[in-house]
Amino acid sequence: VNSPSFQVIDGGITAPRGFRAAGVACGIKGAGKLDLSLLVSDAPASAAGVFTTNLAKAAPVLLSQDHLRRSSGQGRAVVINSGCANACTGSEGRDHARLMAEFTSQAVGCDPLAVLVASTGVIGVKLDISKVQQGVASAASRLSPSGGADAARAIMTTDPFPKEAAIEASRNGRRFRIGGMAKGSGMIEPLMATMLGVVTTDAQVAPALLQRALKAAADDTFNAITVDGECSTNDCVFALANGASGVELTEDDWPLLVASLKAACEPLAIGIVRGGEGATKLVTVTVTGAASAEEARRTARAIANSPLVKTAVHGGDPNWGRLIAVAGRAGSSFALESAAVRIGPVTLFAEGTPHDDRAPEAAGYLQGNEIELEVDLGTGGSGRSRMWTCDLSAEYVRINAEYRT
Amino acid sequence: VNSPSFQVIDGGITAPRGFRAAGVACGIKGAGKLDLSLLVSDAPASAAGVFTTNLAKAAPVLLSQDHLRRSSGQGRAVVINSGCANACTGSEGRDHARLMAEFTSQAVGCDPLAVLVASTGVIGVKLDISKVQQGVASAASRLSPSGGADAARAIMTTDPFPKEAAIEASRNGRRFRIGGMAKGSGMIEPLMATMLGVVTTDAQVAPALLQRALKAAADDTFNAITVDGECSTNDCVFALANGASGVELTEDDWPLLVASLKAACEPLAIGIVRGGEGATKLVTVTVTGAASAEEARRTARAIANSPLVKTAVHGGDPNWGRLIAVAGRAGSSFALESAAVRIGPVTLFAEGTPHDDRAPEAAGYLQGNEIELEVDLGTGGSGRSRMWTCDLSAEYVRINAEYRT
Repeated sequence: VNSPSFQVIDGGITAPRGFRAAGVACGIKGAGKLDLSLLVSDAPASAAGVFTTNLAKAAPVLLSQDHLRRSSGQGRAVVINSGCANACTGSEGRDHARLMAEFTSQAVGCDPLAVLVASTGVIGVKLDISKVQQGVASAASRLSPSGGADAARAIMTTDPFPKEAAIEASRNGRRFRIGGMAKGSGMIEPLMATMLGVVTTDAQVAPALLQRALKAAADDTFNAITVDGECSTNDCVFALANGASGVELTEDDWPLLVASLKAACEPLAIGIVRGGEGATKLVTVTVTGAASAEEARRTARAIANSPLVKTAVHGGDPNWGRLIAVAGRAGSSFALESAAVRIGPVTLFAEGTPHDDRAPEAAGYLQGNEIELEVDLGTGGSGRSRMWTCDLSAEYVRINAEYRT
Repeated sequence: VNSPSFQVIDGGITAPRGFRAAGVACGIKGAGKLDLSLLVSDAPASAAGVFTTNLAKAAPVLLSQDHLRRSSGQGRAVVINSGCANACTGSEGRDHARLMAEFTSQAVGCDPLAVLVASTGVIGVKLDISKVQQGVASAASRLSPSGGADAARAIMTTDPFPKEAAIEASRNGRRFRIGGMAKGSGMIEPLMATMLGVVTTDAQVAPALLQRALKAAADDTFNAITVDGECSTNDCVFALANGASGVELTEDDWPLLVASLKAACEPLAIGIVRGGEGATKLVTVTVTGAASAEEARRTARAIANSPLVKTAVHGGDPNWGRLIAVAGRAGSSFALESAAVRIGPVTLFAEGTPHDDRAPEAAGYLQGNEIELEVDLGTGGSGRSRMWTCDLSAEYVRINAEYRT
């Protein structure tokens, strides 16, 4: 039994066989910008989704959850508009989400329940459903196995660049592909709603297995990033598995399936952080020595969201006292006398003793644009967790303080 | 039985009878800046304290907790240095905190256990204990019933102004005073540790009752403010009650005692927010319609700490969608269809319906510098909570991104 290999390949959601996509401009954003994305599997596919935990879920989130439940995880198409989140839009918004699925089912020739719907953009603004109708028709006529790139552009809001990734996994002669796209500046824009991701694979995976694997992969990728700790009304990640590779993955292939999905999702997730608003540095936060993985994650998240840590990284300040202070307040077990703090290769605090003389070396390291922060909580436990975040700049404030007009 | 009246009076910690204080420069900060504060009660007093919940507690925090326990809440003096937090300083730091208490006990002529100690400033830097020794001697020789103002200046770090408050409470002919001082920019500075408060009263209050009342008052004042959700290694609030007014407050006077303490603490707490780093607006967040007071507080805290809400307020953007999004993710019960959002007098969302046409009116309101935000969670419950915060400006980032030198 060989260990699996993952090769990065060109493309995104249409890199796996049997998927076509398109991205078109239907006028929601205006100025001819791409704003409607359509993905179709040639054959019926298993479908899965992970969704925002926000209680103010947008209409398309509620609809897609309902479709996955009622179809028992069978899907054919994903339709996404950008420029309007269709969130906090009342019963009219729910009608619009349902119509988006119906237009798509008619254009594609499938059951409406096999359509997953997402929206991203301004909250509280009515969706122009006639534009969506035209957009779906236009996109359906342009579906192509090379349409992934346009589809990835059509889901962008204020993202500085599109985010696509694809890999080919092989193990013991079995080969299959996973492709994906994502959007998000890693935060909620002025009245914008955040993160969307779509993952495709030409492996055959039963719906329940796909759902569990997507959740597991998302926990270590899309759910391990933060820009500012906000959780939007519209976040979702969809997966479609159509079996076109002829490779079937079963329960026995769980490690391979999860590792493959992670390999495709990680660059998408990191891409969201790199494109975070005002971000100038990618920051990897690692917490070790925690009493449990859950406690490690809680502290890693607190550090990754700390405005004091993020401004210090932005300013190149090797401010290890802030990391200690966040670790102490994060709600996880913490033993100061055996804790340690590292900024890149430089240990600034260990065994209760500051090494502030090393601060200049750490300050030099912080001039780079890929920063690693590591905190050992000193409990002697084996819990560890990793999260990605970005620095906090004055540009972030400028962007978010501007009145939407 | 008349209801109590609270009259604002001049002064701070020495406004109540029987207290003397001083603030001196002993060279920790340099440039002749006041950096050591001493408060002494002429008679033995009841003492109480509330402390940071951070697990990386600074040496003076641990010492003061120990003294309160071992003295059963008997106190005579409070000594505070600024410019050095004496946090993360190992066993030497613990020795230094103990020595601060001993120097003070010798200068004042009391048991070392009757001395409460606090430090604020840079984390991880050694305290110059010989400077503290000189400072304590100098302060002890200058103790005065009008020394409260100097004492309030001597605990400042980067605070833009000192924070003092005093009231005279009267009820049914009984009169007593409460005075206080506080420091804090409402956040942790670059390696600075945050909030300190000292409250004095000339009422006689038993230690256990004083402790409970201080906790209750702090929960609605010092613990109801935030600038960035950080909780430092050094936060503490002390209370001394010396009985010099001849008025004794007992368990029967609980409402009067707590209300009086709140009346003195609230302006100090609000002062910390007004002086928050980069702050240009004071923001009052009120959450109503929650399933419980605890859930209301959780959501109010999430809103008050949301960088998206704080940048929107800074920019004058009536961005009610962000308030909904935070309320939805705060972990409290939330019913979108019956929720409501108000910015000042303007209702922008109610009963599932946006009123975005009122955004210009709300934008006008946001030009002011005292802003009220209110979110009804729509559960029909009676839980409500209020918190104070400030806006998030580019100046905040600038201050916190600078390398400490």
